[in-house]
Amino acid sequence: MDNFTYRNATKIIFGKDTETKVGKKAARYGNRALLIYGSGSIKKYGLYDRVLKSLKEAGLEVIELGGVQPNPRLSLVKKGIDLCRKEKADIIIAVGGGSVIDTAKAIAAGVYYEGDVWDFFTGKAELKKKVPVGVVLTIPAAGSESSISTVITNEDGWYKKGFDSELSRPEFAILNPEITFTLPLYQTVCGVTDMMAHIMERYFTMVKDVELTDRMCEAVLKTIINNIPVVLKEPENYAARAEIMWAGSIAHNNLLSTGRIGDWASHKIEHEISAIYDIAHGAGLAIIFPAWMKYVYKKDISRFARFAVRVWGMEFDFFNPEKTAMEGIEKLASFFKEIGMPITFKEADIPYDRFEEMARKCTKNGPVGNFVRLDKVDVVKILNLAK
Amino acid sequence: MDNFTYRNATKIIFGKDTETKVGKKAARYGNRALLIYGSGSIKKYGLYDRVLKSLKEAGLEVIELGGVQPNPRLSLVKKGIDLCRKEKADIIIAVGGGSVIDTAKAIAAGVYYEGDVWDFFTGKAELKKKVPVGVVLTIPAAGSESSISTVITNEDGWYKKGFDSELSRPEFAILNPEITFTLPLYQTVCGVTDMMAHIMERYFTMVKDVELTDRMCEAVLKTIINNIPVVLKEPENYAARAEIMWAGSIAHNNLLSTGRIGDWASHKIEHEISAIYDIAHGAGLAIIFPAWMKYVYKKDISRFARFAVRVWGMEFDFFNPEKTAMEGIEKLASFFKEIGMPITFKEADIPYDRFEEMARKCTKNGPVGNFVRLDKVDVVKILNLAK
Repeated sequence: MDNFTYRNATKIIFGKDTETKVGKKAARYGNRALLIYGSGSIKKYGLYDRVLKSLKEAGLEVIELGGVQPNPRLSLVKKGIDLCRKEKADIIIAVGGGSVIDTAKAIAAGVYYEGDVWDFFTGKAELKKKVPVGVVLTIPAAGSESSISTVITNEDGWYKKGFDSELSRPEFAILNPEITFTLPLYQTVCGVTDMMAHIMERYFTMVKDVELTDRMCEAVLKTIINNIPVVLKEPENYAARAEIMWAGSIAHNNLLSTGRIGDWASHKIEHEISAIYDIAHGAGLAIIFPAWMKYVYKKDISRFARFAVRVWGMEFDFFNPEKTAMEGIEKLASFFKEIGMPITFKEADIPYDRFEEMARKCTKNGPVGNFVRLDKVDVVKILNLAK
Repeated sequence: MDNFTYRNATKIIFGKDTETKVGKKAARYGNRALLIYGSGSIKKYGLYDRVLKSLKEAGLEVIELGGVQPNPRLSLVKKGIDLCRKEKADIIIAVGGGSVIDTAKAIAAGVYYEGDVWDFFTGKAELKKKVPVGVVLTIPAAGSESSISTVITNEDGWYKKGFDSELSRPEFAILNPEITFTLPLYQTVCGVTDMMAHIMERYFTMVKDVELTDRMCEAVLKTIINNIPVVLKEPENYAARAEIMWAGSIAHNNLLSTGRIGDWASHKIEHEISAIYDIAHGAGLAIIFPAWMKYVYKKDISRFARFAVRVWGMEFDFFNPEKTAMEGIEKLASFFKEIGMPITFKEADIPYDRFEEMARKCTKNGPVGNFVRLDKVDVVKILNLAK
């Protein structure tokens, strides 16, 4: 087990009707709120009204910034920074999924920084001070509601980049599983794929003696795997939606990283796909993860065999552990397919002609991944395995 | 799953040599530290010197309060409050296990409170402001290093009582598994019993649809069960000590309580035992928990059968789940015995003549436990099952 420091500063407020508390929670930070959301789907089922009512009842003045797109854009972040400065917002309230939250986190980071906010993403600057952020989560997926990560796409070159800072964790996050009842099933399964990927990125490590976090990873994965079929049959099943929603936060709040180094190659490769083709991050991960596994599993057959047995319930082949390992990878791919994800570029209607470009961008700053270090040639091979 | 709020404010600094960071961490809170410890065993292996050096190098003036006993006493807490006020300590540094940390937390709570600090324990007062607390953990057990709980024994009547407050969580906790290499094995297994009890108190709930937390409870229990035999054979096995140490914090930081109500009857009953007989809390729990289980398991045979299968690896008897449930309870008791715990009053040399008194004190404010509500008569029966 590696040395680590761990603290999750985000207060989680979880359960039925909790979005009505947003005003009271936000008012602790001041009286001017910048409300950020996406395409307006939050207006469809009354969530927007409930949030606005709660904020206003708590005495907050609300400035709005809508229109966040999936794979959120730097231009909107910059617009938000200007707005935040001009309106002197005391807190940013993100109502949405990962894209909205990441936009809010990026704006929060940029307000007090004199340079270009993109500097945080390129590593040129380190976050020292930010505007507080509150979240009302609508899409359990990215785990951004309590994570240190912020991922933004720079339209100038279509670079999708993330930056990590403990300071980026939102101050509070409201998670009401009822809000997800109306989440389209495709978005639901994209979210589930993303959270599973967050756990698997951590699970596949070369750090030894990490039993506690290994077992917790398996626990969260199994819970997700058991509950998503229930949600697909009964989208308004509170219990199953609640398990998925809480799992999504735990998957990415770094508890499961304690004492270990994750891999993260699949995420980096996927970012290049969704930066160009604008497909859902979860869909890109469903395509890449099984291909990555097929390419790297020989590095630690025991770990992949255990993944197959403990997470997927496969029988261990004592005379051929590699067979068990392979079966686990196949099972993961078929699970993604069953819940409605594409598992090949073909299924996602993505052509094969820009693999070199994606691999080059992805490895621009050197090899990616920690479980196995991958250079450009490796990444091209993985992309080809995902045809 | 029940509604919940969750945030763990304690920063965990985990790993080798981390105690040398205590000065730097403490200095953020001021320049006068009250250093609290127990019997002086921290002086034996150089920990005291390393902590003092780190604090002084960071520019802190150090005031000392040693002599904390197991089942820590209210009188010392009051002495500490006076000292803290007189010396104007900016931070309290607890170097020790649960007793030392709880003493520090109680002192921290009392300094700004005008009334009797015992008011927090009787529910007469609510904690609003405290002195910051930093921890260097020496005994993985109580989980007090990042928990909301503080347990103190009032010598006036020998009442052992706890109080819970989110504000009581220490500001930071330093966990170096190497420090536990020299921890006597009896204290090690008492600690392990305590942490297992913390998880089982949460695991046995009547709240439905808590799969994620159920599975995480099982994950942490299995990790402890797998690693303690290694520690008993090789006390200086870093990997096993590290798993146990991190498990002890997670067991009691309330992550495993999210969305559910724990039972806590066994803890309440045990507090009456150790308040009178001054045995180790872990030893008392090893006596009470299997007896409690035998008394209540019929309330939810499926849950107890699952505990037997998932935690203890028993084979499920599809035709007689109750048999599996019972086997799990027997397995827990025999495990406690194997690692060196007493599992009956007889083995702990505790006479049977004060069961009525303990049961009366324990249920003074009404029935205890949530999985099953237990009145005085029930508690007497459980105590008799533990003969």
